[in-house]
Amino acid sequence: MTPLRIHLDQNEMPTHWYNIVADMPNPPSAPLGPDGQPVSPEMMGAIFPGPILEQEMSAQRWIEIPDEVRQIYAMWRPAPLCRALRLEQALGTPAKIYYKYEGVSPAGSHKPNSAVPQAYYNKLAGTKRLTTETGAGQWGSSIAFAGQMFGLPVRVYMVKVSYEQKPFRRSMMQTWGAEVFASPTNMTNAGRAALAADPNCQGSLGLAISEAVEEAASQADTCYTLGSVLNHVILHQTVIGLEAKKQFEKAGLYPDVIFGPCGGGSSFGGIAFPFLADKAAGDKRAANLRCVAVEPTSCPTLTKGAYAYDYGDASGYTPIMKMYTLGHDFMPPGIHAGGLRYHGDSPLVSQLFHEKMLEAIAVPQVATFEAGVQFARAEGIIPAPESCHAIRGAIDEALRCKATGEEKTILIGLTGHGHFDMASYDKYFSNQLEDFDYPAEAITSSLAHLPKVG
Amino acid sequence: MTPLRIHLDQNEMPTHWYNIVADMPNPPSAPLGPDGQPVSPEMMGAIFPGPILEQEMSAQRWIEIPDEVRQIYAMWRPAPLCRALRLEQALGTPAKIYYKYEGVSPAGSHKPNSAVPQAYYNKLAGTKRLTTETGAGQWGSSIAFAGQMFGLPVRVYMVKVSYEQKPFRRSMMQTWGAEVFASPTNMTNAGRAALAADPNCQGSLGLAISEAVEEAASQADTCYTLGSVLNHVILHQTVIGLEAKKQFEKAGLYPDVIFGPCGGGSSFGGIAFPFLADKAAGDKRAANLRCVAVEPTSCPTLTKGAYAYDYGDASGYTPIMKMYTLGHDFMPPGIHAGGLRYHGDSPLVSQLFHEKMLEAIAVPQVATFEAGVQFARAEGIIPAPESCHAIRGAIDEALRCKATGEEKTILIGLTGHGHFDMASYDKYFSNQLEDFDYPAEAITSSLAHLPKVG
Repeated sequence: MTPLRIHLDQNEMPTHWYNIVADMPNPPSAPLGPDGQPVSPEMMGAIFPGPILEQEMSAQRWIEIPDEVRQIYAMWRPAPLCRALRLEQALGTPAKIYYKYEGVSPAGSHKPNSAVPQAYYNKLAGTKRLTTETGAGQWGSSIAFAGQMFGLPVRVYMVKVSYEQKPFRRSMMQTWGAEVFASPTNMTNAGRAALAADPNCQGSLGLAISEAVEEAASQADTCYTLGSVLNHVILHQTVIGLEAKKQFEKAGLYPDVIFGPCGGGSSFGGIAFPFLADKAAGDKRAANLRCVAVEPTSCPTLTKGAYAYDYGDASGYTPIMKMYTLGHDFMPPGIHAGGLRYHGDSPLVSQLFHEKMLEAIAVPQVATFEAGVQFARAEGIIPAPESCHAIRGAIDEALRCKATGEEKTILIGLTGHGHFDMASYDKYFSNQLEDFDYPAEAITSSLAHLPKVG
Repeated sequence: MTPLRIHLDQNEMPTHWYNIVADMPNPPSAPLGPDGQPVSPEMMGAIFPGPILEQEMSAQRWIEIPDEVRQIYAMWRPAPLCRALRLEQALGTPAKIYYKYEGVSPAGSHKPNSAVPQAYYNKLAGTKRLTTETGAGQWGSSIAFAGQMFGLPVRVYMVKVSYEQKPFRRSMMQTWGAEVFASPTNMTNAGRAALAADPNCQGSLGLAISEAVEEAASQADTCYTLGSVLNHVILHQTVIGLEAKKQFEKAGLYPDVIFGPCGGGSSFGGIAFPFLADKAAGDKRAANLRCVAVEPTSCPTLTKGAYAYDYGDASGYTPIMKMYTLGHDFMPPGIHAGGLRYHGDSPLVSQLFHEKMLEAIAVPQVATFEAGVQFARAEGIIPAPESCHAIRGAIDEALRCKATGEEKTILIGLTGHGHFDMASYDKYFSNQLEDFDYPAEAITSSLAHLPKVG
């Protein structure tokens, strides 16, 4: 029997998160307010607690993971690093394929890695309630779980169309004690305005963000939480890559190429950045390492977007950040990888991509499900549609290795399981999934609306 | 940080299954044919391959797990043994609570532990196709996965009402390449007869078994697989208890009491029997060990049934077996733990219960979901409705320990996750779940139809 999982003991779990800001060739660009001036921590204090803001602005390389957070992480971490031996055999590739599997968390994805510390720091800072938005429900369920762990009530504004079409993520949030409302609600100005304009409004992520932020900003004891994009979220997610590095070390291996799905960028940064740290430190094993962000062709932020200042939300309520963007009012087609339908990308991932320390590719929807089914039939695990993007990238790389005979070591960021996405698999099997054309005109149009800076 | 998981390396995975037949005070009673004579292996050969029949009749204490099976097990095994520290704290109990978690398998339950060897031995024996039935889909999805692992096409007859109400287990089976049909079909005599009698027939597990067995019996290259009840299925499931024993050994602990859900009995036997082996061997640590089967009050096979010969299926097509039974035509209420709605129980579990080596309790439905939600809020994992029964038993025991101050070590057989059962949690939250009265009259009536023996 060939062991397939590389073990880490619970006492080998990372004690610190890695902050790539300390190792970037150029300092990160700051978020700007409507006046074009950097946003001060005080301005952000209305919706985020102090310790989170400190991490958001920090340039310290290593930031300690509090014991209370590690104790919750210990419910499922260290997460497995597994050899995809049967997939290698099915492909007939000389490449070694590994996957770091985050689907073992209670919510079934990497999202709790940041939800747990966000809930913890809020509790520490005296926050009494948390708000957030969620689309398909991955982030909402993770913050519901994390809030429950620290006794913090959580209110989730869930985009109405998802609330109605994906009831089981909602049930999951309720099982962990969260209040879930279909957004738009009549509890906020933003929601009431949307309902006044259209009583049948189906909601959008941008609108749900507005509701959650409005509630947090208007109540002193309430803070807002966000599941991707921002620096502190990626910081928390580096626990993924830090564990993977230790696991590869135990196996006497080092990856040649890493594929991760990329929407807001937190899971991708989380797996890739700790390896980039080796590169920054001159580690020879990392000299030729490639980190490849995989995005949908229908929402090709890194591969087709502009590197520019833009709003983080659709409505233009947030500070503007320098990032790859398709324009904040770009509306991507309704693909099934809901986590990859964001118009922008993490400013850290964007800057490192711009400086050519990261790569990006875009893949069409049907091909990602094809890869997901091939993976499930070889490895058992049914991957989330987001994760299928990374698998597509890895399979294509492994097939190139087959052609060239290269024995590369490939790492997949397998961000979650697809147990709540089986309706999408159904559509794939019944040939109802579409490949959307590259939305060139829509992008050109939305890029014309970028905010003016300076 | 307190480590919560007790690790076993993949090379510490059990090499042999444990067969309790070797240690039973009395030999097991044999299945009988319509003539009242023991059924011969030859008669069973029409639907089961030789190696499976050998295991079914074996009295050998240890049976080697083939490398090919251990290689598939290695995709998720050893399964975690975890301390439920937060649940203990929430209950304020001095008891230590551990759970052995089988939800990490690809299909999300313990079922693949037997599906994989069943597929393997069929492949070895030259079987070309597998058939089976499934209700809610736990077993069907496990055999779909296992068939895919060994390249064996699988046909699943899924009870029509489940096929329509639980489409996502069906999608899961299709993802692993199985053919799934709503039973009754027009492909078998049994199905055609049912449809002729009632074109809108919604199907039943008994009818789906009849279809799957009929197809296997009528085609030389096709065999039938069953997910519980029979000796070889429990044999395979002992990998659960064998791992748990090794894990407790590492922690320097031994359980005082084990709670497992009990429907057909395979997961319960799987976790309990290896500990009973210690008792049989005179191990002092096991002297006072209690193994408690937890069943629903609405289908109280062990606690209210008769110990008698009865058919394994509803229609009376199978051999008769001596077991606790509510009568083969007993129709349990539509509770949400579909895996616990079986009229009978494993002959091995039944005999050991009759000989007072096992205990049994029955718990009402609403209280099991209450326990499941309490567990989810403390431990993160959302348990399957079947598993909630064991949790209910364990929580009640822990509360008794709180009253008496006893520091017992409690082990829960956590057989699976509830990701495909969120509709049931929804009903619990909206107070739509019922507690069914003990169905005394229905049981009296069905027990009057037991087959006559001798």
